[in-house]
Amino acid sequence: MGIRVGIVGISGFGGGEALRLIAGHPSFELVYAAGEGSAGCRLIDRYPGVPHKLAGLMIEKWDPETLPELDLLFASLPTGASAEALSRVREEVKIVDIGGDHRYVDGWTYGLADVWPDRIRGQSRVANPGCFPAATLNALAPLLAGKLIEPDNIVIDSKTGISGAGRGGGDSKFGYAESNENLQPYGLLKHVHMPEMTTTIERLSGGSASGLVFTPHLVPMTRGVLVTIYCRGNATTRQCVDAAQSFYADRPFVRVTDRPPQTKWATGSNLSFVSYAADPERRLVIAMGVVDNLGKGAAGQAVQNANLICGLSETAGLDLPPVWP
Amino acid sequence: MGIRVGIVGISGFGGGEALRLIAGHPSFELVYAAGEGSAGCRLIDRYPGVPHKLAGLMIEKWDPETLPELDLLFASLPTGASAEALSRVREEVKIVDIGGDHRYVDGWTYGLADVWPDRIRGQSRVANPGCFPAATLNALAPLLAGKLIEPDNIVIDSKTGISGAGRGGGDSKFGYAESNENLQPYGLLKHVHMPEMTTTIERLSGGSASGLVFTPHLVPMTRGVLVTIYCRGNATTRQCVDAAQSFYADRPFVRVTDRPPQTKWATGSNLSFVSYAADPERRLVIAMGVVDNLGKGAAGQAVQNANLICGLSETAGLDLPPVWP
Amino acid sequence: MGIRVGIVGISGFGGGEALRLIAGHPSFELVYAAGEGSAGCRLIDRYPGVPHKLAGLMIEKWDPETLPELDLLFASLPTGASAEALSRVREEVKIVDIGGDHRYVDGWTYGLADVWPDRIRGQSRVANPGCFPAATLNALAPLLAGKLIEPDNIVIDSKTGISGAGRGGGDSKFGYAESNENLQPYGLLKHVHMPEMTTTIERLSGGSASGLVFTPHLVPMTRGVLVTIYCRGNATTRQCVDAAQSFYADRPFVRVTDRPPQTKWATGSNLSFVSYAADPERRLVIAMGVVDNLGKGAAGQAVQNANLICGLSETAGLDLPPVWP
Amino acid sequence: MGIRVGIVGISGFGGGEALRLIAGHPSFELVYAAGEGSAGCRLIDRYPGVPHKLAGLMIEKWDPETLPELDLLFASLPTGASAEALSRVREEVKIVDIGGDHRYVDGWTYGLADVWPDRIRGQSRVANPGCFPAATLNALAPLLAGKLIEPDNIVIDSKTGISGAGRGGGDSKFGYAESNENLQPYGLLKHVHMPEMTTTIERLSGGSASGLVFTPHLVPMTRGVLVTIYCRGNATTRQCVDAAQSFYADRPFVRVTDRPPQTKWATGSNLSFVSYAADPERRLVIAMGVVDNLGKGAAGQAVQNANLICGLSETAGLDLPPVWP
Repeated sequence: MGIRVGIVGISGFGGGEALRLIAGHPSFELVYAAGEGSAGCRLIDRYPGVPHKLAGLMIEKWDPETLPELDLLFASLPTGASAEALSRVREEVKIVDIGGDHRYVDGWTYGLADVWPDRIRGQSRVANPGCFPAATLNALAPLLAGKLIEPDNIVIDSKTGISGAGRGGGDSKFGYAESNENLQPYGLLKHVHMPEMTTTIERLSGGSASGLVFTPHLVPMTRGVLVTIYCRGNATTRQCVDAAQSFYADRPFVRVTDRPPQTKWATGSNLSFVSYAADPERRLVIAMGVVDNLGKGAAGQAVQNANLICGLSETAGLDLPPVWP
Repeated sequence: MGIRVGIVGISGFGGGEALRLIAGHPSFELVYAAGEGSAGCRLIDRYPGVPHKLAGLMIEKWDPETLPELDLLFASLPTGASAEALSRVREEVKIVDIGGDHRYVDGWTYGLADVWPDRIRGQSRVANPGCFPAATLNALAPLLAGKLIEPDNIVIDSKTGISGAGRGGGDSKFGYAESNENLQPYGLLKHVHMPEMTTTIERLSGGSASGLVFTPHLVPMTRGVLVTIYCRGNATTRQCVDAAQSFYADRPFVRVTDRPPQTKWATGSNLSFVSYAADPERRLVIAMGVVDNLGKGAAGQAVQNANLICGLSETAGLDLPPVWP
Repeated sequence: MGIRVGIVGISGFGGGEALRLIAGHPSFELVYAAGEGSAGCRLIDRYPGVPHKLAGLMIEKWDPETLPELDLLFASLPTGASAEALSRVREEVKIVDIGGDHRYVDGWTYGLADVWPDRIRGQSRVANPGCFPAATLNALAPLLAGKLIEPDNIVIDSKTGISGAGRGGGDSKFGYAESNENLQPYGLLKHVHMPEMTTTIERLSGGSASGLVFTPHLVPMTRGVLVTIYCRGNATTRQCVDAAQSFYADRPFVRVTDRPPQTKWATGSNLSFVSYAADPERRLVIAMGVVDNLGKGAAGQAVQNANLICGLSETAGLDLPPVWP
Repeated sequence: MGIRVGIVGISGFGGGEALRLIAGHPSFELVYAAGEGSAGCRLIDRYPGVPHKLAGLMIEKWDPETLPELDLLFASLPTGASAEALSRVREEVKIVDIGGDHRYVDGWTYGLADVWPDRIRGQSRVANPGCFPAATLNALAPLLAGKLIEPDNIVIDSKTGISGAGRGGGDSKFGYAESNENLQPYGLLKHVHMPEMTTTIERLSGGSASGLVFTPHLVPMTRGVLVTIYCRGNATTRQCVDAAQSFYADRPFVRVTDRPPQTKWATGSNLSFVSYAADPERRLVIAMGVVDNLGKGAAGQAVQNANLICGLSETAGLDLPPVWP
């Protein structure tokens, strides 16, 4: 018998990707799925391609008081919807919260799995990083740890596919006809992912990051996050690449590349690509990071965190190559 | 002073395209715009690129009783929403109904402008064809008129961009992430456009069309309709092309092409492309038709109809070449 | 030590998908990769997300005379390029030809794996069906076997994503700007997939299929095939569905659905969806089929065939749920 | 008789858009079209939707020595291809070079039409700005002219649709299947548009701009450029907006908006949207600019320049509202 796993938020994009990864995981057994819109359906009604073994599982209405026997719960709920509800889940159920409510909250570990796996191992409450922070912090961590850039002078220009905005309640802003062939900035100077990035940059660098600038953009594609980060420092491209290769030497999911990364390299995988271009004459360091916002940016990193807290191999169920083209 | 024009349903895709065409029309002056969602806004708040002369026009809440002085009204309302309301519009206001409520309804002329312009000239109540019928009937009319195919043995396989499903109420079915990279049939054996096609085919052929088969598909693109129509008859490709060229000899918007038409040929225009491939040995005639579902399939044909009922040149305001790429 | 596997045509879309599936296969070990454009590179230079264990494998220039020790070869070469070359591969190397040169060629088995797995088991030369035939034949087989439709009166209207046209030599016809927001029929009355469909329909039905009509369309999406097939027969929807459920009762990859299938249901998987809508009054049966053109339509079915010829579990390496959204 | 106009590079995206605009221009008459790939065809063979009056015009092989009687020539040739050839065009033929060879070259005026129309009026050799500079310089000009930002501390993160990469020679890099669902930086620290931006910023500000940072990205959409520009200065958002509104008070094509601009606002038009968000506490000014890369970024601004050099109304032929959705 495997580890008994549940998913809350099964109808959303994060929950759906968690389902895909758990379905192929060698140690996890999905025994519980809950969701708003699709409660009362079987999994196969909602996901026509779900494996036969899971096809008949009924989707429940989410209620933290009436969970079945569970070892591990993945929560993928809208911001604001998980704080109270997850507090009512039994202590002995381990939780990975893919949503935003528990990042840098007391009693929860911030699950930046590629950077600090040892802090995560053995914990029972892990808050998954947001998709932008996942791409950003993996790219910056080696530079901050190596003091190659100034922590307080960082400009993050980030771009995400539209699934990053969530399945939402059918907001016509994200309707096909209006989003296709359209590119737009949003949430200028006040995005919800700012605090976790500022806090993590400060932890990694030991300095202040109050000057952080972050501008997200919505790109007409389904999946993918690319961050282009403008930093100040004297490092050369070579020094940045070397720092990153050394920092991630034994980490299975981060790839340091010589050429600028493309979002399609990561699609469907838990991989994270980082790359650098520097011009010491202008004290300029450009760091780039690519993830799949539903992979490393959500369900992929969640499974990685779950592997760590369950004492499994970190790569269990995550060794899927990306889908191309 | 030009012809005073109003648009009802200004926030939808059909209404927006009507706005674009009217803004560039030499004889029309937009004096009234009404819409649900955007009532109380100026036009420029809803359409940031609207010409300066129209920027300040306030969007009203739609009320047929309190219209300003108007010569002509374009209505682009959801199916079911215009029948009662338009009956309360003053007689002397001419109406082109882009929506579906008045097709083959007593007192209204079915505005198949490329096929029977003479029936439309001078009328004051015109029902615009749906986007699928627009593409289909233009392709079939020459074959039916020339008795080149059997009217009762026609299979229409049609494909539309997602704006053809309307701006909707934010139905997440048409959300970007779910619609992109997805192709789906819908409304099998019961689409709302069936009756107007059956009726028109019968009028054009003099025979029954009760065997009509029609299968629409939703294609991941914003604009464009392509119909691939399988007919039975003894004609050769050459005979079909000749019949169409002769049928449309003096018509400004229909183009008969030797190679299969592509939806992008029509984007942003009121053009209609028709093409044919036949195999007399198998008694097979394939007719193909392409339109922009918001052009010939909605606002373009509506302006063409308006030109006809107002006694203007049929091409006034409609001589825009398509947008490529 | 696993089964030693090679891929020829590694740079193309079919070869790339074969790589992805083989990388995750429990019994296959990739020891050889050959390709035109990328010969001399390591796999990771071409596929930045390839698993570490394969990263350093050098891509060879394709030469059938100098193959290493191999048990199994996947060939994914352009039409016309494999016939002669594969004839020079050593007898003892099993071959699955994803390309089109060996379909219904003497000495080769046509690998319609979901329909006739027993003909494939133990063979050593298998020709994979084309992507359109894969979707079409899976949808038609139960109807033909059950005599529910006339074999000689079938119209196939098919739609494929652009990867179905192959990676090509950079033909600008398939350039992004020209293909995006564009939908087009092509290859009317003479597509290269016609003969294998005609032959298979005749084998399954015992009757002539010389009247077959087939019209492919190119849809602006990367992956996915949908076929909408118009047939004549007296069956009801229920009878068709029942026939298909019974026909595929023990087959792992074919799913019979009540609602019309969507291409996204299959993306990234080896699944095949079939569905039916019939109107006995008009003697109309509409059969629909969905596959991923690179999954069941190419590399997925190729791996399934390879499993069959190697005596492995048919689903080995293929139990990946589809990627959504 | 109108002004006799020619287009060189008619098969490319810039040439095609010039054709569309010229076809609808009240004073221009297209009498000459030349192109590589399509020489020997009629215009309608290449552009199936071209107006009837132009349908039969033959596409010539480009030869500057054998031009017909012409008043004005639009050149849209690949970088490097126009310098020598255009030098052989007769003096009395006015030229607008949409390509990159004559920007800030002696004898040519840099045609930044919204910013310095008076320098362009009456000239006979005008070099059109690149698409990125068009979006960038329109957004920065008011800030630079008003000394609201430091000219030497500017980071431009720009994003373009794939038509911005040109129709190319069928480079499979821009193939649909590989570009769709993909987002990628390119040309880091060395893009060909850098020099004209640096020079113009220096002219507008009177200071050095040697520290300019520019990172272009390719976005999976056909048309549209968005630049997000990070500057240093003490201005508030209000001050930036006011400066821009005053700077562009009488300019017909630039729109200053309160909310971040979206690329779809400009599609198919010659409009340029600029917007600002500042945080004086951090001395941060974010300037944003949106254009259609084929409109203001190419053919639109070219026609605007042509209007200026021909003494016509600046908006002649350019008052098309954008296409939405």
